Amino acid sequence: MRGAVLYGTRDVRFEERAEPKIVQPTDAVIKLSASCVCGSDLWPYRGISPVAEPTPMGHEYCGIVEEVGSKVQSVRPNQFVIGSFFASDNTCPHCKAGYQTSCQHRELVGGAQAPRLRVPLADGTLVATPEVPPEELVPSMLASSDVFGTGWFAADAANVRPGVTVAVVGDGAVGLLAVLSAKLKGAERIIAMSRHAARQALAREFGATDIVADRGDQGVARIKELTKGIGADAVLECVGTQESMMQAIGSVRPGGFVSYVGVPHGVQLNGEHLFFAHVRLHGGPAPVRRFLPELIELVWKRRVKPGKVFDLTLPLDQVAEGYRAMDERRAIKALLRP
Amino acid sequence: MRGAVLYGTRDVRFEERAEPKIVQPTDAVIKLSASCVCGSDLWPYRGISPVAEPTPMGHEYCGIVEEVGSKVQSVRPNQFVIGSFFASDNTCPHCKAGYQTSCQHRELVGGAQAPRLRVPLADGTLVATPEVPPEELVPSMLASSDVFGTGWFAADAANVRPGVTVAVVGDGAVGLLAVLSAKLKGAERIIAMSRHAARQALAREFGATDIVADRGDQGVARIKELTKGIGADAVLECVGTQESMMQAIGSVRPGGFVSYVGVPHGVQLNGEHLFFAHVRLHGGPAPVRRFLPELIELVWKRRVKPGKVFDLTLPLDQVAEGYRAMDERRAIKALLRP
Repeated sequence: MRGAVLYGTRDVRFEERAEPKIVQPTDAVIKLSASCVCGSDLWPYRGISPVAEPTPMGHEYCGIVEEVGSKVQSVRPNQFVIGSFFASDNTCPHCKAGYQTSCQHRELVGGAQAPRLRVPLADGTLVATPEVPPEELVPSMLASSDVFGTGWFAADAANVRPGVTVAVVGDGAVGLLAVLSAKLKGAERIIAMSRHAARQALAREFGATDIVADRGDQGVARIKELTKGIGADAVLECVGTQESMMQAIGSVRPGGFVSYVGVPHGVQLNGEHLFFAHVRLHGGPAPVRRFLPELIELVWKRRVKPGKVFDLTLPLDQVAEGYRAMDERRAIKALLRP
Repeated sequence: MRGAVLYGTRDVRFEERAEPKIVQPTDAVIKLSASCVCGSDLWPYRGISPVAEPTPMGHEYCGIVEEVGSKVQSVRPNQFVIGSFFASDNTCPHCKAGYQTSCQHRELVGGAQAPRLRVPLADGTLVATPEVPPEELVPSMLASSDVFGTGWFAADAANVRPGVTVAVVGDGAVGLLAVLSAKLKGAERIIAMSRHAARQALAREFGATDIVADRGDQGVARIKELTKGIGADAVLECVGTQESMMQAIGSVRPGGFVSYVGVPHGVQLNGEHLFFAHVRLHGGPAPVRRFLPELIELVWKRRVKPGKVFDLTLPLDQVAEGYRAMDERRAIKALLRP
């Protein structure tokens, strides 16, 4: 089969790769219904994270089970399944506490920008939909694999509840779905920080009540102004840079929550600054597996359409154009059709 | 009157100072029943925090109200009262959210190592005991002014609940009272990190179930060993150094809580490290005012004796010896009798 492989900065190739197969008896192999390019794929694509060797790309996936290992019990061939970027056993103490991305036996899933994918620890990783979903639901199911689950975790980790005021830093797919998640969790006011018209529009559609185009200290001042000098109850940081983190911490009220769900790049936090900000800080790789049953149900019942973040659809063999479009911010998120 | 003034590194003088008086109509002046030296006083005493000018010392206090300003309504002369190091109005949005140490009108209270003290914002700051307490309760009432309230906040901010496993980093008065607080909040297992026999003994008396003398990576390894490789549910960081913070973050399970209640000195946290630790982080200047009614009741009903952290009692004019004894770790905490 052919799939996406990253060779170095802005060098994604669509080339022949080995067919995935069952390696461990706990594996499954799935035929992908769709895949996509993640905002986090842009870090190595842009050369900000090093690429040590040619790396098969893609970690968001949904599709039909083709084959399972001898020990797999919870999914079977021909089911439609969704999993997350870290495979997890879903039985260890960390999984039981809801932190499947810190599973004691976690394994990164990679190479999903391809027609087929091996998923380790299938029982603990994959969740099947009630039936094979109609085509129209596939983008939203795919979004649940990562960006919706990550936006949901941002809202969950920041304790978003009915009535609170939320600010979201970042207008990528995760930020936009953090807006949607905050809305679903009952936030009364949702301030989306964005300076991009199309993203502002989608943020409003997902539930944003206010848009702030300012960044940095000016962005902080604007949030304070909108909250009568108090600060937001919860700030969902969905970027991962020093500036975005400082903006988030500066925008929250004392005792409020900052969640951060994008891998921080070069972020250093000063202990004394955090101390006097009185902030509650929680983040990490989103334990999407914890939320998948709930997210799948929301999509299945057509209560939400997180798949709207895909504003570009390409055949898989044009994956490189998907990276380019996202890198240049011409697209929020590119869906790939095998 | 005469009180303690810090002139520079290890230079505390007991010297003539102006008598406190009502400056604002919201002030109270109290006659101190006892005062003490705080672990945080040692930062400037040791020269780690700069001393720009001669500074009246002391911010822990309890005593009898002598005089109140014309606008003070909730306390009156001859009542025994306790307050915290930050005066607060207790009515602003931050106070209402329980973060009185971030009060929009907060004022530092200083100069309590003296016979008398002016307390600003008396209505929002001072809490009266049911009656003037007997002498034997005074040390525990004084402890509630800061170190007990700070240890309590450490347990509160780390979400300590019945059944959890807690580790406490730091065996100063705050760390020891964090042990007591965790016990009162129902922690099943409390691991105190201490290498000092007298402090270990008091930690056990306060409820510690395990003592770990190792520090740094070895301390982390020992906590992991004691928790079957999982990590503690909550780690209460009561020191404020880079090493102690790293020890705390390394000792907690993914999704667990680290609270930090000592002003961090030179602490830098790496965003990516925090991210993959999956830690929940919350700290800051303890909003003791939030807890004072509950702490006073615990002491009043003789359910706890936080005053046991005072293992040295000195007449006020020997305040310099109190600093020396704590600096040299000969005393956990020095109580001063005016």
